[in-house]
Order: sequence, then C-alpha cells, then structure tokens
Amino acid sequence: MASANDEIEALIALMARLPGLGPRSARRAVLHLIRRRGALMAPLAAAMAHVAETARECAVCGNIATGDLCDICLNPARATGEICVVEDVADLWAMERGQAFRGRYHVLGGTLSALDAVGPDELGIPRLLERTRAEAISEVILALNATVEGQTTAHYIAEALEGSGVSVTSLAQGVPIGGELDYLDDGTIQAALRARKRF
Amino acid sequence: MASANDEIEALIALMARLPGLGPRSARRAVLHLIRRRGALMAPLAAAMAHVAETARECAVCGNIATGDLCDICLNPARATGEICVVEDVADLWAMERGQAFRGRYHVLGGTLSALDAVGPDELGIPRLLERTRAEAISEVILALNATVEGQTTAHYIAEALEGSGVSVTSLAQGVPIGGELDYLDDGTIQAALRARKRF
Ligand SMILES: [Zn+2]
Ligand SMILES: [Zn+2]
Repeated sequence: MASANDEIEALIALMARLPGLGPRSARRAVLHLIRRRGALMAPLAAAMAHVAETARECAVCGNIATGDLCDICLNPARATGEICVVEDVADLWAMERGQAFRGRYHVLGGTLSALDAVGPDELGIPRLLERTRAEAISEVILALNATVEGQTTAHYIAEALEGSGVSVTSLAQGVPIGGELDYLDDGTIQAALRARKRF
Repeated sequence: MASANDEIEALIALMARLPGLGPRSARRAVLHLIRRRGALMAPLAAAMAHVAETARECAVCGNIATGDLCDICLNPARATGEICVVEDVADLWAMERGQAFRGRYHVLGGTLSALDAVGPDELGIPRLLERTRAEAISEVILALNATVEGQTTAHYIAEALEGSGVSVTSLAQGVPIGGELDYLDDGTIQAALRARKRF
C-alpha cells in the first residue's frame, strides 16, 4: 500500500496490536497522533519508552512496579493484615478504583486450569500461603471473577488456608454471575467489598 | 488513585487521548503494552518517536510525508495529469486503499465554512488552481464527502476551474448520502471512482 510511507505503515501495524484498536482505528489513531505530533505524539512516545524501560512485576504481589516493589507494597499504611487475591493486574486496578480496600494484593496471573497445565505453583499460591505467615495476615479476601475457573481457584485457596487461622472471605453481593471485575463500575465493587462474606 | 504509579498513570492519560480509546480501554491497552514491553511497547515507542520527529505535511499536496514531499508526489509514475481532491488525509488513505486511482492528490484540510471563517485560501484552493497549470493537469476528481459542506466546496472548486480546460469530475455511484469516505469499504470506493461523472 502506497497510502503512507513505510515507517508510518509500520507504526500503524504496531498500533493495531493494541486491544480495542483494529487496523482501521489504528490508522485513525496514527493520523490523530501525527496531527498532534508535538503536543501528544512525542510525549506519548517518551512516556511509553520510559515505562517499557522501567516497568516490571512487583516481587511480592505481582502488581506492575517501576522498581523491585510496587507502590502498594512499599506503603506501610497498607500493611493492614489483609490480602486481596485477584486474577490479574487489571482486576487489581479495578479494586483500587473502588477505593474501598486499604490492604495489599496477591496477583495470581490466571486461574487453575488442568487443560492449560496451570497449577498452584504457576499461580504463586505457595507464595501466598508463605505471605500469610510472614506478613501476619488475618484475612484473605478472594476477589476472583465469578466464572467457573475463578471459583474453582477460590475454593482451592480457601482449602489451602483451612486451619491456618486466616479468615477467608470473598466478594459477594453485586458481582454478577459470569461477570468480570474489570468491567464493573466502581460502586458495584465497593458494595461487593462491603458485603463480603465468609467463604 | 494509587492503582499504578504516577508514570504509568501519566501514560494511561496520554493513551486516553487517542480516538477510539476511553479511560478504561486506555488502561487495558497500557497493561497489554506492559506485559509485552519488550516485543511491543519498546518498538512502538521507538516507531512513534521516529514518526513524531520526521512526519510533516507534503509541501505540494498536504499528505503526510517524512520529507519535504510525500511518497506519492515523489513517484514520477503518478504524474498522470489527474489530481484527486480530498478533504483530509484520512480520505486520501481511504482512496489509496481502493487502489483504483493512480494520480496525485490535493488535501484541502477541511471544507468551506462561513461560520468557521474557512475560505478558499485556508483550503489551499488557489494553490490547487496553480498546480493544475504547473503540473499540466487534465482532470480534477472531486472526492469530497457527500455532506452539504463537502458539496458546497466541490461546487466552488468546479466553478473556479471553469474555462481552464481542466475536466472536473466527482465520485458518484456508491457514495451514500451523508456518508464519509473514510468509513466506506474498498469496493465501494473503487466502484465510485470507476463511475465518476462530469461535475
Ligand atoms: Zn506489590
Ligand atoms: Zn504530496
């Protein structure tokens, strides 16, 4: 295609790999960026390069961090004795938007799946158990998606913590069946957290 | 919000300014990028920085270029004596996707509008008339959107070229009333170009 030159086409192809942008919308986004190349495109490129260089997984909880530990693990005010277990970082961000939880997180990075050979080790569940002891945790809140896989994983963690003295709760009211946390509005997440029940 | 650190929040805010991405989808896109920071985020940042640095308007036609002239104006095979007039670069790209037009372009950058004080000079219409002489143009194809503003502008250009010996045509069959070129499929644009009629 001779519509734009090779460098611009290469940029469009990279943009089209973002979720939510197809080839057509990537083209519109690139055109938008070129029109605002000083005010938007250059700062965006710089911010992206910087985050690409510095971002990594928090060594403790699995959240995105720009150092060894994430801002939440570095914040002593969040050592509340509570750990909220989420499937992925998008869910952690969704919980944070709710602004109702003040403890720390444990990001599993997925759910148990015999088919995909994802076992407890792959999800860092032994590390979670270790954390409940090392960080004197009194409550583990399971904020997993209301899917079969999410609930299977929740049951596994609840059983693993049985007899440990740690209270295991789960988000309850407000999470729709089959619903994904990341798509819920902030109020729903707040209500679900307030109404959490013993698992 | 403490969900991610300030640098990541800044990146999300910049991404949310792209067309087609809201705050929520910008967040998902950034998370996607961070997960693929080596394979996607770093190359995307570099491509974006490079294009931000080099992209400009073609001095002849108004297309996006990475030098003084765009690839189409630099290509001698496209000196066919035809100029296709479009409202903006997105429309030029849409025409190129149709792969039916082999001549050169003139990007107006808008339409005539008394309300917004956009006159012929703002749209480079005197420069278009100058080009028809300097480039020995035999046909000007008006590929403007089928909106009131687009057609007003088309009429103005057709009148300005009256008596110049340049044949003025317009895209006809296939462009729906009120339709915007950039949203048409490639086949429709090809058919509209083939069936172009004298304006
Ligand atoms: Zn952390
Ligand atoms: Zn050009």
